[in-house]
Amino acid sequence: MKKIIVQKFGGTSVADTERIKSVAKIVTNEKENGNDVVVVVSAMGHTTDHLVRMAQTLNPNPSEREMDMLLSTGECVSMALLTMAIQALGYEAVSFNAAQVGIFTENVHTKARIIDIKTDKLRKNLNEGKIIVVAGFQGITSDGEITTLGRGGSDTSAVALAAALNAERCDIYTDVEGVYTTDPRVVPNASKLDEISYEEMLELAHAGANVLHPRSVETAKQYEVPLRVRSSFKTDNLGTLILGVDKMEINKPVAGVAEDSSQIRIVVCDIPDTPGEAATLFGSLAKKNVSVDMIIQSYARKSSNTNDIAFTINKADLPQAQEVLNEVKDKLNAGDIKIDDNIAKVSIIGAGMIDRPGIASTMFQTLAESGINIRMISTSEIKISCLINKEDAQKAVKALHEVFALGSDEVADVKGTLPDV
Amino acid sequence: MKKIIVQKFGGTSVADTERIKSVAKIVTNEKENGNDVVVVVSAMGHTTDHLVRMAQTLNPNPSEREMDMLLSTGECVSMALLTMAIQALGYEAVSFNAAQVGIFTENVHTKARIIDIKTDKLRKNLNEGKIIVVAGFQGITSDGEITTLGRGGSDTSAVALAAALNAERCDIYTDVEGVYTTDPRVVPNASKLDEISYEEMLELAHAGANVLHPRSVETAKQYEVPLRVRSSFKTDNLGTLILGVDKMEINKPVAGVAEDSSQIRIVVCDIPDTPGEAATLFGSLAKKNVSVDMIIQSYARKSSNTNDIAFTINKADLPQAQEVLNEVKDKLNAGDIKIDDNIAKVSIIGAGMIDRPGIASTMFQTLAESGINIRMISTSEIKISCLINKEDAQKAVKALHEVFALGSDEVADVKGTLPDV
Repeated sequence: MKKIIVQKFGGTSVADTERIKSVAKIVTNEKENGNDVVVVVSAMGHTTDHLVRMAQTLNPNPSEREMDMLLSTGECVSMALLTMAIQALGYEAVSFNAAQVGIFTENVHTKARIIDIKTDKLRKNLNEGKIIVVAGFQGITSDGEITTLGRGGSDTSAVALAAALNAERCDIYTDVEGVYTTDPRVVPNASKLDEISYEEMLELAHAGANVLHPRSVETAKQYEVPLRVRSSFKTDNLGTLILGVDKMEINKPVAGVAEDSSQIRIVVCDIPDTPGEAATLFGSLAKKNVSVDMIIQSYARKSSNTNDIAFTINKADLPQAQEVLNEVKDKLNAGDIKIDDNIAKVSIIGAGMIDRPGIASTMFQTLAESGINIRMISTSEIKISCLINKEDAQKAVKALHEVFALGSDEVADVKGTLPDV
Repeated sequence: MKKIIVQKFGGTSVADTERIKSVAKIVTNEKENGNDVVVVVSAMGHTTDHLVRMAQTLNPNPSEREMDMLLSTGECVSMALLTMAIQALGYEAVSFNAAQVGIFTENVHTKARIIDIKTDKLRKNLNEGKIIVVAGFQGITSDGEITTLGRGGSDTSAVALAAALNAERCDIYTDVEGVYTTDPRVVPNASKLDEISYEEMLELAHAGANVLHPRSVETAKQYEVPLRVRSSFKTDNLGTLILGVDKMEINKPVAGVAEDSSQIRIVVCDIPDTPGEAATLFGSLAKKNVSVDMIIQSYARKSSNTNDIAFTINKADLPQAQEVLNEVKDKLNAGDIKIDDNIAKVSIIGAGMIDRPGIASTMFQTLAESGINIRMISTSEIKISCLINKEDAQKAVKALHEVFALGSDEVADVKGTLPDV
């Protein structure tokens, strides 16, 4: 039986008919390699933005169901056009939307999760020698309602299809050449990683490296689908392979450095030190769907018997958080609430740090030597994050990248690192 | 039980978000009249042209299946946007594509015929008080393949839905104010007809009055669905009601005058007068899908014992016709083949001419008095058509319109009479 390769092309990769022709070449080359090919496409370039703008003109608060009806058309356009381009090269090809494949999701609009993917139609068409093009980002409920998967949706579609088809690999073609040790716009000699583990990629993704959405990496990890991130513009570059940590040879303790300036820090001062106050605060935030990242609770002050609790959230969640805080402040009889958006989080990530001591102290010392004040710290098995002042972020990334010897001799040539949806 | 009104809005009626807002008003006004409303929409303005252009850039001969996948997205965009606009006015509304409704067609791409329409989902949502917006022009096969209905497809979707739902009426909103006695661009005092029969409308449609596609009129006739053609721009005008001839009071013998300049005339000269030569000729044309309109076979010439056969076809079919003619010429041992595109067909149409003699002679005499030479004649129960020289067409239409007293005192204010697809 032939091996199945799932390829995913994002919006910039199918932005116009010239780009679609290039993608058709990439697809048919993989077919010529002797593999069966299933392609997942996003909507063309700015299609989604255009549709969203029209919707907002008509209704400032459009129903999520109708937004899904609207936005799911974008992928159907690019999928049909790519199929025609592949046929023009003399190959048999066929396109399917999510309803036709049977990509079943929960009955939730704008951010549904995939529950099940039917593979019989896909396998039948692959067995007939056809290249299959599938609309990414969309799903269908058991009632025939059209859903979309939210941010990173097409990546998730591709990985989930690869898992369902037991594919050899899922190739995510995008506008960057792979996963880098850090943002090449900040550190020009950042080096492209040939391999990285799912866990490291997840931490990098969460830490602000916008190559892949965490959800798609989680799905790949869960089903052990090897993922390759590579450029649809420079196809001679194999990009970065993301796979299980057990299948990797780890040379360096730190794989990459990430920076995230999208957070803000909130301090709730002088909370009376009674049991359950943290549960009240974070429980209320969770109910409003506000994700909290780093948390520090100060030791109770003996004099007043009160605590300060500091935590970080995403900037976008501030309005919801403020609602919660105003309520909770009274309930807990707390003092001032301070909000600080002059912060950045720098993280070092590496599966290799698990059994090598001294990595954290090297990080803290490096930042200290650069005159950078550390305001909060959080750690996981394969990550250490420090909250610092925003103006120090680039200096911190450069210093850490150097001290952990992540640079290459080459200067990276990367235009942008924005993700495709 | 409430009455159901099906409304159809063409591409110009939903060309941009401003127009979509106006359409939402028309829809909700009908709901306020106490009726249940099912809306059928075409793709926005030039969407279909844009998609076709992209397809042709990628593949000069795209597969019909993929063209259907591509073009069917256009209606899904306008249907979701219109639904949002209706919701913005405070009404409950929901959109369905053809697959969700269950608009089943034959398994033919780009020109499928509707076989069956499921009504349970529609009725359930109407009973819940919702306005339903359905994508026109598209269907689905029993295998889940997406099809489109070809020219006039959205009109056909609307009429078929009205038939399936046993609707009170199907309102076709378009960019003209109704059906006119003749083209108001040619005869400024052409009058709008308040009523016309299906049969007359069919003859008018075939004769070149581009208001409704014949297929939708045929479907309306078959299921006795009253059709109203009206303007989405001037909603105080009730347009033209198209209904069964038995339900009409017929005042005038002639309802309208139509002109068609899209035909060409072909004469095959000197065909030996043996049995079956016409069958050979027209059978071969039919096999190539060339529709023949008017036919005249001359009396056999005694001297040479040969016939001339003259007939008209649509200009677009000329290449296929020429292939056939070259073959048939040898087979029949015929003489020259003459092709003449300097022709026009003028027709008078009216259910009232059935039992009124003298209509034909009035027509011929009027043309003669205008110095117009009649080259061919064909008639049906409710139509008389004359083939004349193209340069005489407008003069003929004006003269006939006047002699049959079809003009109104008002001068029509119509910008265009191009049909919506």
